Amino acid sequence: MEDIRNELDKLEEYLKIKPLYWDFDKGEFVWIDTRLIPWKELYRSTKDYHRVAQAIKEMEIRGAPAIGVSAAYGLALATIYSNASKVDDLLKDVKEAYNVLASTRPTAYNLFWALNRLWNVILSNYEKNDLEDIKQNVLNEAHRVYIEDIKNNVNMGKYGSKIIENNSRIITHCNTGALATAGFGTALGVIRYAFYEGKSIHVYADETRPLLQGARLTIWELKKEGIPSTLVVDGASGLLFSKNMADLAIVGADRITLTGHVANKIGTFNLALAANYHKKPFYVAAPTSTVHPTENPNDIVIEERSQDEVTNIMGKLNITVDGTEAFNPAFDITPPEIVEGIITEKGIVKKPYLNNFKALLYGRQ
Amino acid sequence: MEDIRNELDKLEEYLKIKPLYWDFDKGEFVWIDTRLIPWKELYRSTKDYHRVAQAIKEMEIRGAPAIGVSAAYGLALATIYSNASKVDDLLKDVKEAYNVLASTRPTAYNLFWALNRLWNVILSNYEKNDLEDIKQNVLNEAHRVYIEDIKNNVNMGKYGSKIIENNSRIITHCNTGALATAGFGTALGVIRYAFYEGKSIHVYADETRPLLQGARLTIWELKKEGIPSTLVVDGASGLLFSKNMADLAIVGADRITLTGHVANKIGTFNLALAANYHKKPFYVAAPTSTVHPTENPNDIVIEERSQDEVTNIMGKLNITVDGTEAFNPAFDITPPEIVEGIITEKGIVKKPYLNNFKALLYGRQ
Repeated sequence: MEDIRNELDKLEEYLKIKPLYWDFDKGEFVWIDTRLIPWKELYRSTKDYHRVAQAIKEMEIRGAPAIGVSAAYGLALATIYSNASKVDDLLKDVKEAYNVLASTRPTAYNLFWALNRLWNVILSNYEKNDLEDIKQNVLNEAHRVYIEDIKNNVNMGKYGSKIIENNSRIITHCNTGALATAGFGTALGVIRYAFYEGKSIHVYADETRPLLQGARLTIWELKKEGIPSTLVVDGASGLLFSKNMADLAIVGADRITLTGHVANKIGTFNLALAANYHKKPFYVAAPTSTVHPTENPNDIVIEERSQDEVTNIMGKLNITVDGTEAFNPAFDITPPEIVEGIITEKGIVKKPYLNNFKALLYGRQ
Repeated sequence: MEDIRNELDKLEEYLKIKPLYWDFDKGEFVWIDTRLIPWKELYRSTKDYHRVAQAIKEMEIRGAPAIGVSAAYGLALATIYSNASKVDDLLKDVKEAYNVLASTRPTAYNLFWALNRLWNVILSNYEKNDLEDIKQNVLNEAHRVYIEDIKNNVNMGKYGSKIIENNSRIITHCNTGALATAGFGTALGVIRYAFYEGKSIHVYADETRPLLQGARLTIWELKKEGIPSTLVVDGASGLLFSKNMADLAIVGADRITLTGHVANKIGTFNLALAANYHKKPFYVAAPTSTVHPTENPNDIVIEERSQDEVTNIMGKLNITVDGTEAFNPAFDITPPEIVEGIITEKGIVKKPYLNNFKALLYGRQ
């Protein structure tokens, strides 16, 4: 416990923006409601895992790593606040919470990875038959998921910054910063790290329709840190590359298969195609907890969200005729052929992805 | 004059939506304010060419052919309502109007084409030294520009419909329908024609940020005619093609060089890249009045519009932090390599574009 507090203190320098955390005094999970940014900066908190599930489902919390960490804390809340007096009943309560949390969003692999990790802690402590011990171990595991996510992001930054030359003009899509993780960010973490190293960079942030994570969140983060940035519409990347206004693209991921297929926010594939056509590198930054250990890209489930997100902007402005049918896939899949490299906390994975991911993850070639 | 009224009557069947027209009784130019659609359907009218220039600049009227036709009527208004009592003074008035109208938008080639066409009528009637005759000839020429635009669109529909097979799923970008022309439309005219021929089609309309012409105008037109349609965000085309949900893309153009470089609404290039990567055809539909007779694509001027159009949606909703810098190019340029064909009123032009455009326009190979 003291260890965890110490570890957290050491990470403070990387947490200029703190999107989610555990309130040790109140025993609550706390998060900033990203749906309200940039209009309002509001932190919410709860002891109820249902509320965490709701926050994930309605995208108050979004970004695959942030979803994973939040689900871990959600399952920890379900565990420590369970009224069960026997371990078997506790398991039932936690299993129910597992199912509720797992059903929030289907694509982010980190969600399932984090839930399974906590579930395994419960199973491996089951024999001890000690309620309080299980509860403490589960909460500690959630803290470890949180801490590791931040450390992973900083490590991705270290590895990833090497591919960012001085004076780079970088296009990014969606939000992959502090607000998409436990802190620091994945793709935006790489950009942040390069900026901290003193490199002169300029970021073109795609606005990222329908939910405008680029316009609302990425610009908000970049401006807070003074990183030079320009907002563009999602359709501008072809022009930016063709006019030699951009040097590379970096994005995050919600799920990556061993084959190097990258599921990420809708519009990512189009950005990758624009980079590829102009022979500019397209990079992905994601922790290995985003890697779905399958060789079949068809295993990727693409979440289809409400049509209202397209026909009405953030619940504030109708932009089309009443009764319009919209198709709102939250993600697309960029094929490995046009991905220059995948930046993980363990290093940059290059083609051929299947061999190299297996080597990285399982130590065989 | 009777001829013109008769010609107009014959075109009525193609004008289920009438975006702009001449009011013969009042001697006024009339247009629907496309900035207000779909929230309001409001027609505006004027006898003042400055008001026409304003309507073009502020995009109450938009779409290259509509801009051309409106500029023609604007110059006609300047001519017929000039107080000049001598032909030389009339010429001065009209030249001033020419400059005002020509400075509204820099990319749409039809604007300059139409203005030059009317200006040439004045010059060729100069010697007669007959004020009333010049005025009538200029107005008649504006009517001819209007009538020809509609006829050209219908002819594009005839030629273009041949490339649309039954059960096609078509992606289009921006608005290229009645609202972008004197009536009927270019790319959407082709789609309309195929639908009138009884083909079963489905249209995916890109919303087209920043000004949402797809969501606001294209869907509005398609629903009025009962053409099956689905609204998608601009970043969805990669996914649509990769999931075999779309068969082809058709867009309009604001300027096309003899080399086949196509300037069109920002995001067009990205759509073309998505089609091309999946080996699906990407077509452009535009009248030859959109063709800039240059062999140098660098002659294309790309209009950069106000940052506010990106940071604030339609003047109604701020989507980012105050003080955000945005880059708002109105157009991009799709290179000829990835354009399957250019549908004109004279037939479909294919590669090599330079040879084939010269043959089409100048009758040599």
